[in-house]
Amino acid sequence: MTDLAALAASLPPGAVLGPDEDLSAYETPWRGETGRAAFVVRPSDLDQLRETVRWLVGARQSVVVQGANTGLVGASVPGAGGAVAVLSTERLTGLLDVHAEDRAVTAGAGVHLSTLDERLAAHGLELPVDLGADPSVGGIVATNAGGARVLRHGDVRQRLLGLEAVLFDDNATVVGDLRPLRKKNDTIRVADLLVGSAGLLAVVSAATFGVTARERHRATAYLLVAGTVVETCRRLEEDLGSRVGALELVSGAALDAAVRRLPDLPDPFPGRSVDVALLVEVTGPGAQDALVEALDRLGPLVSDAAVLPPERAWALRHGLSEALAREGTVLGLDVSVPRDAIEPVRREVALVVEGLVPGARLADFGHVGDGGLHLNVVLPAAASLSDEAALRRAVYDVVTRAGGSFSAEHGLGPVNVVWWLEHEPAPARSALAAVKRALDPYGLLGTEALRDAVTEGGRR
Amino acid sequence: MTDLAALAASLPPGAVLGPDEDLSAYETPWRGETGRAAFVVRPSDLDQLRETVRWLVGARQSVVVQGANTGLVGASVPGAGGAVAVLSTERLTGLLDVHAEDRAVTAGAGVHLSTLDERLAAHGLELPVDLGADPSVGGIVATNAGGARVLRHGDVRQRLLGLEAVLFDDNATVVGDLRPLRKKNDTIRVADLLVGSAGLLAVVSAATFGVTARERHRATAYLLVAGTVVETCRRLEEDLGSRVGALELVSGAALDAAVRRLPDLPDPFPGRSVDVALLVEVTGPGAQDALVEALDRLGPLVSDAAVLPPERAWALRHGLSEALAREGTVLGLDVSVPRDAIEPVRREVALVVEGLVPGARLADFGHVGDGGLHLNVVLPAAASLSDEAALRRAVYDVVTRAGGSFSAEHGLGPVNVVWWLEHEPAPARSALAAVKRALDPYGLLGTEALRDAVTEGGRR
Repeated sequence: MTDLAALAASLPPGAVLGPDEDLSAYETPWRGETGRAAFVVRPSDLDQLRETVRWLVGARQSVVVQGANTGLVGASVPGAGGAVAVLSTERLTGLLDVHAEDRAVTAGAGVHLSTLDERLAAHGLELPVDLGADPSVGGIVATNAGGARVLRHGDVRQRLLGLEAVLFDDNATVVGDLRPLRKKNDTIRVADLLVGSAGLLAVVSAATFGVTARERHRATAYLLVAGTVVETCRRLEEDLGSRVGALELVSGAALDAAVRRLPDLPDPFPGRSVDVALLVEVTGPGAQDALVEALDRLGPLVSDAAVLPPERAWALRHGLSEALAREGTVLGLDVSVPRDAIEPVRREVALVVEGLVPGARLADFGHVGDGGLHLNVVLPAAASLSDEAALRRAVYDVVTRAGGSFSAEHGLGPVNVVWWLEHEPAPARSALAAVKRALDPYGLLGTEALRDAVTEGGRR
Repeated sequence: MTDLAALAASLPPGAVLGPDEDLSAYETPWRGETGRAAFVVRPSDLDQLRETVRWLVGARQSVVVQGANTGLVGASVPGAGGAVAVLSTERLTGLLDVHAEDRAVTAGAGVHLSTLDERLAAHGLELPVDLGADPSVGGIVATNAGGARVLRHGDVRQRLLGLEAVLFDDNATVVGDLRPLRKKNDTIRVADLLVGSAGLLAVVSAATFGVTARERHRATAYLLVAGTVVETCRRLEEDLGSRVGALELVSGAALDAAVRRLPDLPDPFPGRSVDVALLVEVTGPGAQDALVEALDRLGPLVSDAAVLPPERAWALRHGLSEALAREGTVLGLDVSVPRDAIEPVRREVALVVEGLVPGARLADFGHVGDGGLHLNVVLPAAASLSDEAALRRAVYDVVTRAGGSFSAEHGLGPVNVVWWLEHEPAPARSALAAVKRALDPYGLLGTEALRDAVTEGGRR
């Protein structure tokens, strides 16, 4: 650790935070368990990043790469051991180029989504990744961020035009490229492996995304669904085509919590009992009229509808997490299922939850248009850690039996790695371990539980 | 080779074509040099594919994977040596599932795009990959196929929801998954590396793509551009937003060849001298009116416009290659550039072509909306192979200096691998070599020139 001074000396002042400094901001995830960092290093550009990586590799220092630390599965903080360092990309903000003619943007790993959005807005553009949090570019790549606009615009993987990353090898090899081209097939894109890689393979230094014309016309409504959610979605899609911007499910339990706990939020159906509501957004010129006409055509599929200004409608949707957090301890399970399994899975999960832990209840919401569901379980005060583990297992069982995914958009982390070990066949885990060795030859990258699980995959 | 009988005996009749049979269909690419195959093997399902791979790996048999053999850069046929076998995916057609509610389709590697389209049409769906050829599913993945709809709908990489592939290791390991989910981040997607991998890393067995509602309304017109092509594109996009389905450039030289050589095709501007024309497609209800009104608003940017039925307009566009082939030997250079470089690059390339090879002339067309250009050079009868090499180098120089790509949508192959070696930095080539070793540990996969170039990357 004496060499840490040498690393610090080769970087700008404040780039290295030593073990005697307050590292808590880098050790505390947004959700999940607090860890302990050996030290923190924060390079400011590609050269400094490579210098840092060379030093870390030379010292065989284990590392967790951290962006804005808004991840929800624990992949952005080290474990409790205290031997793993944090490589923060927060200072990698110098690069931010809007390529207006090519409808693309190139940004350093540390640039926040909100900053990106501000810069794009000046050009009438937007990156259609809509999240409840404000992550950084490196983070949205490493988690393949999704959100409410995936239905219409795809996830980060689908918006990515270029990626630059630094490998943890002796040379701190740079892979990938940032050209804002829609078509380029002039190499095999090794760097693209980093999408959704949970910080296990390399560190993202910058990325280029395809962006879209900023949506100028939006209209939103909450529908009180009388038929099935899925049929309502399908009818809206058939009617409105690509004008449908979002389709979000809000359970009555989640809506009730929001209205009770956060009185500033609108109540779309005051005094009515809600089983399930659907938030629909329509885009394009004449959005409001198109929405109202489409609602008329839904007929008996909906028993009521509340057209709200988009800011109000989305404030309610984005307030659901906070409202539930005020209800008590929440177990957040981020899953996806084929669309025709949405309703049977919700019913089965509700029964499983109530049967398994007395007093627990499902208060779910989610991006139902793309099959995503946040199956939040409000736990009773008496619930134990083993109750949580049993709930997680039981819900994932229902979901995977229905052909779904136990991690829709939050990615892989210590929180769900046990399930990954059970779910992914051993030969495929072995292949991933081989790829990790190829890119991270000294096995330095990733939060411990995840890193060890993936590395072990190579030792059948 | 005596063991080949054992492989043949383990597969259905006709699956193995031995060295004494006529293998020419597997040795002759659509464009480029004919090779020689040691033998051909054609498994019919995943089990047979794994059996085949285990045999090939056991025999340390070098292999080129071949789909519909419609590639344009020579990556789908072996070289002339005769020692490399062809693994054809043409019989992997048993799997073809439309997931209508999830707007997705899962198909075996051997399923042709036309078959896929037919099946999707019955559900009112389509895979928006529009090409001049009829490749197979494995081929469009291995080349990351693009085409005329990338502007609106992205390339194959962006449409891919799932991928299943078999590695050339002792176990014939299956990687990836085919679930038709829009959101799944429950593993690190090693299989996705195969997108655009030119058959170098593994063999695709099946893929799942996101599809779209079949476009019911299209209107198309050719515009005689009086201003710049790029400004015309931008104005149309600002005016029509996501209703713009395609923007294709057709040079006067290419249009002239089509009209002269293929009299069944429409001539949008009879008797007029055309410098450059733009094919624009508008989609959605009221497409025809929207197109005509948008054309009015372009004012002096266009000097003439011919609204044609979409089938006629696209027949002309897709007939350009054949028309040019009748003009003489054509050197086809598939590049992309940032949009604001389109016009300077076209001008510079035209000068370079004429200056370098007397009698050669540029007759280009391309997917100008996404920056793609097919810089076709009609060669004089006297042109030599070294003229072709010099032209290729000079054009690629112009393109890469402008920030473009020397292979926009055709991918990597023997035809352009020399340029890849010059263009890709040695450390990045080394990283790719390491990944290739991780997935293809015996180095068996790929047409010789490409395989050797990539493998050599690991030996700095």
